[in-house]
Amino acid sequence: MDKGIYLFEEGNAEMAQLLGNKGAQLSEMTKTGIPVPSGFVITTERCIEYSKKGEMTEELKKEIDSYVQKIEEKTGKKFGDKEQPLLFSVRSGAAISMPGMMDTILNLGLNDDTVEGLAKGANNDWFAYDSYRRFLQMFGEIVLGEKKDQFENIIAEQKKTENVTSDQEISLDGMKAIVTKYKETVNVPQNLNEQLYLAVEAVFKSWNGQRAKDYRRYNKLPDNLGTGVNVQTMVFGNLGESSGTGVVFTRNPATGEKKLYGEFLLNAQGEDIVSGARTPQSIDVLEKAMPEAYKQLVELLDKLEKHYTDTQDIEFTIENGTLFLLQTRTAKRTVAAAVKMAVDMVDENLITKEIALTRIQASSVEKLLHKQLPENLDCKVLTTGLPASPGAACGKIAFTADDAERRANAGEKVILVRTETSPDDVHGIIPSQGTLTLRGGVTSHAAVVCRGLGIPCVSGCGDLEIDMENKLLKLGETTLSEEDFITLDGTTGRVIPSQAKLTEPELSNDFLTILDWADEKRKLKVYTNADTPKDAKKALELGAEGIGLCRTEHMFMSADRLPNVQEMILSQTKEEREKALAKLLPEQRKDFKALLEIMEDKKLTIRLLDPPLHEFLPDEEDILKDIAAIKKTDNKEALQQKEILLKKTRSLHETNPMLGHRGIRLGLVYPEIYRMQVRAIIEAASEVQKNGGKTNLVIELPLVAEERELSIMKKEIGEEAKKVMEETGERVDYLVGTMIELPRACIIADKIAEHVDFISFGTNDLTQTTFGFSRDDAEDKFLHYYFTHKILDEDPFIVLDKEGVGVLMQMAIDKARSVKSDIQIVICGEQGGEPKSVGYSHEINLDAVSCSPYRVPIARLAAAQAALGKQPA
Amino acid sequence: MDKGIYLFEEGNAEMAQLLGNKGAQLSEMTKTGIPVPSGFVITTERCIEYSKKGEMTEELKKEIDSYVQKIEEKTGKKFGDKEQPLLFSVRSGAAISMPGMMDTILNLGLNDDTVEGLAKGANNDWFAYDSYRRFLQMFGEIVLGEKKDQFENIIAEQKKTENVTSDQEISLDGMKAIVTKYKETVNVPQNLNEQLYLAVEAVFKSWNGQRAKDYRRYNKLPDNLGTGVNVQTMVFGNLGESSGTGVVFTRNPATGEKKLYGEFLLNAQGEDIVSGARTPQSIDVLEKAMPEAYKQLVELLDKLEKHYTDTQDIEFTIENGTLFLLQTRTAKRTVAAAVKMAVDMVDENLITKEIALTRIQASSVEKLLHKQLPENLDCKVLTTGLPASPGAACGKIAFTADDAERRANAGEKVILVRTETSPDDVHGIIPSQGTLTLRGGVTSHAAVVCRGLGIPCVSGCGDLEIDMENKLLKLGETTLSEEDFITLDGTTGRVIPSQAKLTEPELSNDFLTILDWADEKRKLKVYTNADTPKDAKKALELGAEGIGLCRTEHMFMSADRLPNVQEMILSQTKEEREKALAKLLPEQRKDFKALLEIMEDKKLTIRLLDPPLHEFLPDEEDILKDIAAIKKTDNKEALQQKEILLKKTRSLHETNPMLGHRGIRLGLVYPEIYRMQVRAIIEAASEVQKNGGKTNLVIELPLVAEERELSIMKKEIGEEAKKVMEETGERVDYLVGTMIELPRACIIADKIAEHVDFISFGTNDLTQTTFGFSRDDAEDKFLHYYFTHKILDEDPFIVLDKEGVGVLMQMAIDKARSVKSDIQIVICGEQGGEPKSVGYSHEINLDAVSCSPYRVPIARLAAAQAALGKQPA
Repeated sequence: MDKGIYLFEEGNAEMAQLLGNKGAQLSEMTKTGIPVPSGFVITTERCIEYSKKGEMTEELKKEIDSYVQKIEEKTGKKFGDKEQPLLFSVRSGAAISMPGMMDTILNLGLNDDTVEGLAKGANNDWFAYDSYRRFLQMFGEIVLGEKKDQFENIIAEQKKTENVTSDQEISLDGMKAIVTKYKETVNVPQNLNEQLYLAVEAVFKSWNGQRAKDYRRYNKLPDNLGTGVNVQTMVFGNLGESSGTGVVFTRNPATGEKKLYGEFLLNAQGEDIVSGARTPQSIDVLEKAMPEAYKQLVELLDKLEKHYTDTQDIEFTIENGTLFLLQTRTAKRTVAAAVKMAVDMVDENLITKEIALTRIQASSVEKLLHKQLPENLDCKVLTTGLPASPGAACGKIAFTADDAERRANAGEKVILVRTETSPDDVHGIIPSQGTLTLRGGVTSHAAVVCRGLGIPCVSGCGDLEIDMENKLLKLGETTLSEEDFITLDGTTGRVIPSQAKLTEPELSNDFLTILDWADEKRKLKVYTNADTPKDAKKALELGAEGIGLCRTEHMFMSADRLPNVQEMILSQTKEEREKALAKLLPEQRKDFKALLEIMEDKKLTIRLLDPPLHEFLPDEEDILKDIAAIKKTDNKEALQQKEILLKKTRSLHETNPMLGHRGIRLGLVYPEIYRMQVRAIIEAASEVQKNGGKTNLVIELPLVAEERELSIMKKEIGEEAKKVMEETGERVDYLVGTMIELPRACIIADKIAEHVDFISFGTNDLTQTTFGFSRDDAEDKFLHYYFTHKILDEDPFIVLDKEGVGVLMQMAIDKARSVKSDIQIVICGEQGGEPKSVGYSHEINLDAVSCSPYRVPIARLAAAQAALGKQPA
Repeated sequence: MDKGIYLFEEGNAEMAQLLGNKGAQLSEMTKTGIPVPSGFVITTERCIEYSKKGEMTEELKKEIDSYVQKIEEKTGKKFGDKEQPLLFSVRSGAAISMPGMMDTILNLGLNDDTVEGLAKGANNDWFAYDSYRRFLQMFGEIVLGEKKDQFENIIAEQKKTENVTSDQEISLDGMKAIVTKYKETVNVPQNLNEQLYLAVEAVFKSWNGQRAKDYRRYNKLPDNLGTGVNVQTMVFGNLGESSGTGVVFTRNPATGEKKLYGEFLLNAQGEDIVSGARTPQSIDVLEKAMPEAYKQLVELLDKLEKHYTDTQDIEFTIENGTLFLLQTRTAKRTVAAAVKMAVDMVDENLITKEIALTRIQASSVEKLLHKQLPENLDCKVLTTGLPASPGAACGKIAFTADDAERRANAGEKVILVRTETSPDDVHGIIPSQGTLTLRGGVTSHAAVVCRGLGIPCVSGCGDLEIDMENKLLKLGETTLSEEDFITLDGTTGRVIPSQAKLTEPELSNDFLTILDWADEKRKLKVYTNADTPKDAKKALELGAEGIGLCRTEHMFMSADRLPNVQEMILSQTKEEREKALAKLLPEQRKDFKALLEIMEDKKLTIRLLDPPLHEFLPDEEDILKDIAAIKKTDNKEALQQKEILLKKTRSLHETNPMLGHRGIRLGLVYPEIYRMQVRAIIEAASEVQKNGGKTNLVIELPLVAEERELSIMKKEIGEEAKKVMEETGERVDYLVGTMIELPRACIIADKIAEHVDFISFGTNDLTQTTFGFSRDDAEDKFLHYYFTHKILDEDPFIVLDKEGVGVLMQMAIDKARSVKSDIQIVICGEQGGEPKSVGYSHEINLDAVSCSPYRVPIARLAAAQAALGKQPA
């Protein structure tokens, strides 16, 4: 028979397929000289064989026995020994981590005999019987499938008998009584080999459990990989004052600072730190408490970081002065930390710039642009907890995850406040502005989740009190309800019982360094969608190379211009309309001149008016109200005007405005509108050029569906531009561009390309028409249902739909380039600043992405990652 | 030099490329032994050479001279003869007829000498000088480019001098004076060869005139074809009582009857017939007037019809007893005549069935199925809207659907007149004679419903105004009330403000014969879109082979069911909803049973509920009115109910309902609705089968965008169907189908095909999303502008857009068949009954088209034509 079991020292990180990921990692650590509790891995192949045969073979049992013997030799302990019993943990571990696989069984190897040995070794009978009790329960639940209730009932009964409230208070005799009752309830074999075989078999079986199978089907993973089984010697951090347990990061996961960061507890087990039941001490304290172990730990951490060339997150246990590392993994980190670590590690020659760039999750970069509390805060601080996830956040208090989700989805800004959080709370954390917990440290559940999400978090505010019944948060005299605002500073841990003003963030030098490196590597240009000088300046500051989309309609909306816009719309004749447009002309010219002066020779893409005209008119209901009011005053002229307005509003009403009279359709029916805009653009550019400035213009036509729309409108533009140039005597160069926002435009992109030099995918609209989803309606009407029921994995309005919209885009790109190889093609929908979509834009060879100013840094980084062959996320 | 000129007897019909179409036709007639005035054709090649060289070569002039000589020999007349001068007409004639080419020059060969010869030959000086005058003017205008005004002024002056009003009254001396003045004005050469060279050159030049070039560019015709020049001997029908001219058809072009049909005038020229200045006589009279010529004419007509194997429309001239045919062409005809001619000619063994089928314009067939307005309408037309559903209808005006229903049920004939219609109006449309709407195009709700029902409809009469308060319909001075009759012509869009007399349709045996032949030839199946037993029966009568689309929503709209539908929509919980649905179940079962019994083993495709639920609720405005009214009565319970209704109506409101919560999205969020429908279908089918009937069912899911929508819903359907079959003990076979109505569905059609056996293109919706055109808005907002300004040639909601929508369809077909080669694919949009679209459906290998009942015959014929390789129109 081939080799079916590997000692940790026989494997390495490359063997994940055979040993599972956990087994391979434990092997790698062992190989690297890290003191890992001894153990072995039963290979995934044995699991596959088991699946085929449906039973444990005698050969496998013998093989397991022989490896138990090897561990006995290595540790000097004996399985079943009444003095120093060897105990195991048994864990599943597939090549890909998978929910639904078997939970860990600890303390395997205990029976009525060995429990005495454990007690003797630890010099602690209560500990030993408590461990035995726990083992029986775990084995009962996990391996034998017994209900949790019956175990809990036995404990509850015992506590009642002894009249105590916590497990810790149960007497030794009580604990022994519990063990006796457990044994009556559940048939855990006293034979230790039998225990081990059954546990291994349970792992094998869990591979074909319903939940694991569902997960694989859903994620399209093959069913024939199998799982490894990790059998590892138990070590105990709770054997007294020379024992302990802790969690430590090689660098600060919140700031990136190169300094050990972590916590430990003396005389405790790992779960005590995670649960938050006891408040742990800073890792620095360990140096004084156990200088030898601390020194060894520091050396090991250094070694591990160099080995893995990344910040490590390590679990350790000290058993009677001996240090063991139980796990090392790449540390989760805030984006600020990720940036600092990446830049530092390049400085330290630990990694290359390329690797540094791929170490930062592009989507998380947005958090660096998030708000902060002002330096000189003038609000009262209620209390200060642990700075668990940086950044400031403000919102009204939500006391349950469900409340938080519901209210946030309704548009409210909320802060989730919980005693502590568990995975059940994640759906409430995600939509919240920030999270506050009363218990738990900087490695607690809330802290880890929030850092991952880039959401501010303050943890361990033990002096606060929650009154769940009345939904109140109290501290001393202060009482806050769901209606009250609270502000968190996750960078310092401060909690402010009011709505504090937040300030804009500042880009760190490290981050600017990363973005410079990104610019060196990326192929995609990054433009911005900006309609105002303020947006344009911000975008340039954040590295935009031009404006890929300037929407002119927002310019029409200001209170002082709207009357002229409405006059234009209400015009009965072309002449009247031209008169009204003439009033708008100088304003538009000013708009464009300001933008041109900011952009200089960088591209400025101006999209001519797009929305349906009724968007500029008041609601029918409001007009009716006005009319009712005017009727009382007997002002006939005012009444007549309102009635004209009403009639026009009604005549412009559309059942489906998204598919209505907008975009170039507007320009074709009312060419004088587009001509006014073109005049304003060319006049503005003339002025700028005459003052010695440069211009780099694209005049863009929206919502094209048919070639002739373009050919006609391009002619109109050319005529008007020529006229202005003749008037001003100044030649202005400009490109004509168009937006592809409709499936038909994708299909006829070759014909479109004959008329334009610039194409921009308006993927918001293209997604709407490709799916037949109205952005205005779909989200709350049915898309939410689609996401929760997994009908769609992602919101196609956020992440570009490669399967549908992407196919149309590729068709359009191929067709357009087939007739004009140097045509510029960009994307300017919301997806243009979303990392996965940026990656896709690189993949399909777009020239540029264009996104809102604050997303420009994300796009720069994501574009670099894509160019480096890493799928940005 | 190669041969550059052909006598008519040297050419034939196949030589259109070289001789131009007219030249080839004249040659063919000559070759067939038809007495055509002699002449020759200068080839298109000579024209091309001229275009290259820019001048007439001496060789060409000599070549022309030699052919003039040949004509002199053939006719015995001499060019320039002072006794019997030979005169020519000169005409252009390219291979494809083209506006902008040169007009005809008549009487070329006249000068101061030959005019005397002409006078002598005709024994009519006035005629000769009038001819000379006309020639000088034609030559001046056409060849020399002189202005028409100066000629007209000279005539006007002469008439003033003589104090007469018509040209005919001018004296011989006056006519001679005009000739003298013309010659002073314009330099027409007296040299006759020169005249001919210049005329030929003018034809050559007109090939490269701006209008002809524009026409070619617009129609994508090549510029290098050139035109032929036809030089033909003049003959005169006005040389006295043994001369004459006429027009004759070989069969009656209005009825198809096999009997000569035409008119003639003695001592007249062709233009006298066309101008209507003299009233011509029936062709029968010619038999008595000139028995010899008549006999010859009858023989020639018979020969021509046999030669061209189709009814001919002929121009003839008799010059001094000698018959000449000037032109023959295929006769235009009414559709009734086309049908009779086609069937008769097959009986006569003149043509094959295949040819007969291609002789009838498929689109015109619709006229045979509807009541019509008489050809010679003597009523005032109020306005003309869009021809939304063909046929004529007459009735009194009803302004609401309720009124229409009530009055129609009371036996009155009514026309429903609405601003626009919604599903709420269907109960009023059904009993009406016709529907008139102020808004909406030919694919608006009213249009689609009416076409489906075969009810005439005129839509988009934007100039009409409805005064709902006083129930009046206004336009300018005209005001119509409920008591007034109105007549609609849905075939032309005319609206007549009175009671016009209508003519009844009848399906002739000839037409039925044609349809039988069509069925033998066609490859496409023809299904129908039918929702009611009445529609289904009518469609079967008209030859439908099944129902390709049964829309279930119309079944929900009847007054007695709507309350239950609304109860279902207003339900707060799934349980409440199921209770309301349970009330609808027996009604739906009845619906389906009735259809199944009619269809027997023919396909019945039932589409599950498609429209957004708010379509079943009243308008917000109406509810608000009700609430205001109830408030006065203090009925609290009623008020509360209305307020719940208002709230739900508002919550269901959508900005773009076409892209909203409808189709399968509805079924996914409320599976109990689809389950009720599936239960009703399967229960109905069980009953039918138990009674010995057969069923052939497709259950169809609308508006799919994503594969998982289908996989989930198919499972639901399967579960419900299985449950019912277990209850009834009756196995019911059914296919699951889906509608492809969205671009994304086309793109993922391979994935879709894995879940269904039947795909139906919903090309109405697919056109909407591909173009981004809302059917409800686009027509009157901008599409009308698009058609008048040639931005689009055809309405894509009427004629399938091959360039855009068609590309998506082909993609879908390829992908679907790539995974399931035997999948059935049909089209069921409005275009499914339009001939060009039926042709395209054949071309892209669809299995079937499905159209409204009255379009079934059109589709049958068009499908046959397509199968015979002729593009239907």
